[in-house]
Amino acid sequence: MTQSWWLNPCKPIDAQAVEQAQARQQQLTKPAGSLGRLESVAVQLAGLQGQVKPSLDQLWIAIFAGDHGVVAEGVSAFPQEVTGQMLHNFVSGGAAISVLARQLGASLEVVDLGTVTPSLNLPGVRHLNVGPGTANFVAGAAMTPAQGELALQAGRDSVQRALAAGAQLFIGGEMGIGNTTAASALACALLDCPVVHLAGPGTGLNAAGVSHKAQVIERALALHGAQRGDALQTLFNLGGFEIAALVGAYLACAQEGIAVLVDGFICSVAALVAVRLNPACREWLLFGHRGAEPGHRHVLETLKAEPLLDLGLRLGEGSGAALAVPLLRLACDLHGQMATFAEAAVADRPV
Amino acid sequence: MTQSWWLNPCKPIDAQAVEQAQARQQQLTKPAGSLGRLESVAVQLAGLQGQVKPSLDQLWIAIFAGDHGVVAEGVSAFPQEVTGQMLHNFVSGGAAISVLARQLGASLEVVDLGTVTPSLNLPGVRHLNVGPGTANFVAGAAMTPAQGELALQAGRDSVQRALAAGAQLFIGGEMGIGNTTAASALACALLDCPVVHLAGPGTGLNAAGVSHKAQVIERALALHGAQRGDALQTLFNLGGFEIAALVGAYLACAQEGIAVLVDGFICSVAALVAVRLNPACREWLLFGHRGAEPGHRHVLETLKAEPLLDLGLRLGEGSGAALAVPLLRLACDLHGQMATFAEAAVADRPV
Repeated sequence: MTQSWWLNPCKPIDAQAVEQAQARQQQLTKPAGSLGRLESVAVQLAGLQGQVKPSLDQLWIAIFAGDHGVVAEGVSAFPQEVTGQMLHNFVSGGAAISVLARQLGASLEVVDLGTVTPSLNLPGVRHLNVGPGTANFVAGAAMTPAQGELALQAGRDSVQRALAAGAQLFIGGEMGIGNTTAASALACALLDCPVVHLAGPGTGLNAAGVSHKAQVIERALALHGAQRGDALQTLFNLGGFEIAALVGAYLACAQEGIAVLVDGFICSVAALVAVRLNPACREWLLFGHRGAEPGHRHVLETLKAEPLLDLGLRLGEGSGAALAVPLLRLACDLHGQMATFAEAAVADRPV
Repeated sequence: MTQSWWLNPCKPIDAQAVEQAQARQQQLTKPAGSLGRLESVAVQLAGLQGQVKPSLDQLWIAIFAGDHGVVAEGVSAFPQEVTGQMLHNFVSGGAAISVLARQLGASLEVVDLGTVTPSLNLPGVRHLNVGPGTANFVAGAAMTPAQGELALQAGRDSVQRALAAGAQLFIGGEMGIGNTTAASALACALLDCPVVHLAGPGTGLNAAGVSHKAQVIERALALHGAQRGDALQTLFNLGGFEIAALVGAYLACAQEGIAVLVDGFICSVAALVAVRLNPACREWLLFGHRGAEPGHRHVLETLKAEPLLDLGLRLGEGSGAALAVPLLRLACDLHGQMATFAEAAVADRPV
């Protein structure tokens, strides 16, 4: 493994394809701008794919899972065994993302970075055994640098497989009981933002639960806050294996030239870490949805991200990004297949 | 034609299917409520279709077109001939809605209620010749009651064809140079709302154009305002043939039991007229998107409508509703195909 591969340059955008796609949009049989966001994403995808008429037939979804030591502090509504049980549900086809991947014709891979369930061995799941979940970050770093680099590389490895499969769009999803606590702590540290703005109900805490979760995050920040200027060390201090894998995946996508559709709160925090490590990766990130977790809007604002959907989702698994895929595909279809004013003999507005 | 068929009762919602669908949602392997709006629309569709697991395979899109006499006042950025030219584009496959219908596997029918282009005879278009466009409503009623009833019936006839084709969802679209002026005037009259709140740029007027359009609407309201308490007569005074057809279609869908996905500003104004005529039809209306035309939000608020998408669209043609179809289909797929906690042996949160 090359040291610090994540600092390698990102692939540049194809400015000529952007220009040609913009010109094409102006000629299609509709009032200029009337397809709103669908016009700008089609043009953006043209620049990322380096072709005037982009397409998104080949879709890769990777779910990264891991357990979290901080769950010992009582920060989740669900028992920790659910992480491993859901891995089985992902590959059996019963989870939300399994249904969505099937309907979208996407490749779905499930990567277990490390859970508390000992010797889990599920057909169809890549078990990487980075550790039995992270350590409890109120008492020390969540992971060692060696574990963190393994997790970053796991994300990069998934992108290499996506590339080999011809993927035109990468969606990373996550599963891990306790991971909104890790993501909130990470975002608080990186944004230097009050904990009350970023701690939320996650999978379903009540008000007392959210308050307790905020106190746990305060303790973690007191311990690790001095290192908040170092994004990589802060990821290792407060993140999770699956969050680090997402960071690695997003950076590898930007380096290899695969457009990314970012999911909800936890994935957006991973995107924030990726952008702090290597700012040029931002251009490769599209955002699927604005989630219900209250901290999401702060992270999105920082990233100047305008998600496509706003439907009150808070499931994770990559589900919100997957739900936005048909919009991106239809944006490409409209861009590529609509007639021009000249082709259709329709009068444009007078100049 | 039975007199006042539009007042016939709407089909009732299946309360048992709603209850069973709600119970099913609680058992699926996800935190309760974590799929946000997708959960509520799946339950709503269960009630409309009378089955616990609804589906939306069969989709019917009808585009209603007509010209507007008020264009003589200089209220549109595009020449009036575009209405007829776009009819040709719809059936040739080059318009936005043509591309979307093809990608969604929808039946697309194009109904020409009456345009200014004489003796238009396009293969694949139903030419009804209700009139050579409406009359200029600053000088009199836009249409006669006889023309209005023909247009309402044209919408109902389309729904009968949709029903015969087994449609599970109806989308009405519209095309007609000048029809944001008609829709804005109609909404101002029905909502008793200041014109400045409802007049917008339409297909692309500048500020001076919008101001002129508002003055034209003021003149029309001065002429017809006394009848604003009569929704049907107000439709005939200020509407368009295609708007009346949409009103008829929405009411017929509610009577026959086909769920409707309402498109943007003009379609929402037609929905407002339909609800004023026969309030029970409201339950059959879902809303696809919040459009860029500024008056749209006023109409949506009045209808207590929460559209699925908000992407700055302002094209019409049913395009915004069509773009929301994959979300509804995926909502049905998730609702119908996800595993329950019991099936997947996943622990639910402790009671």
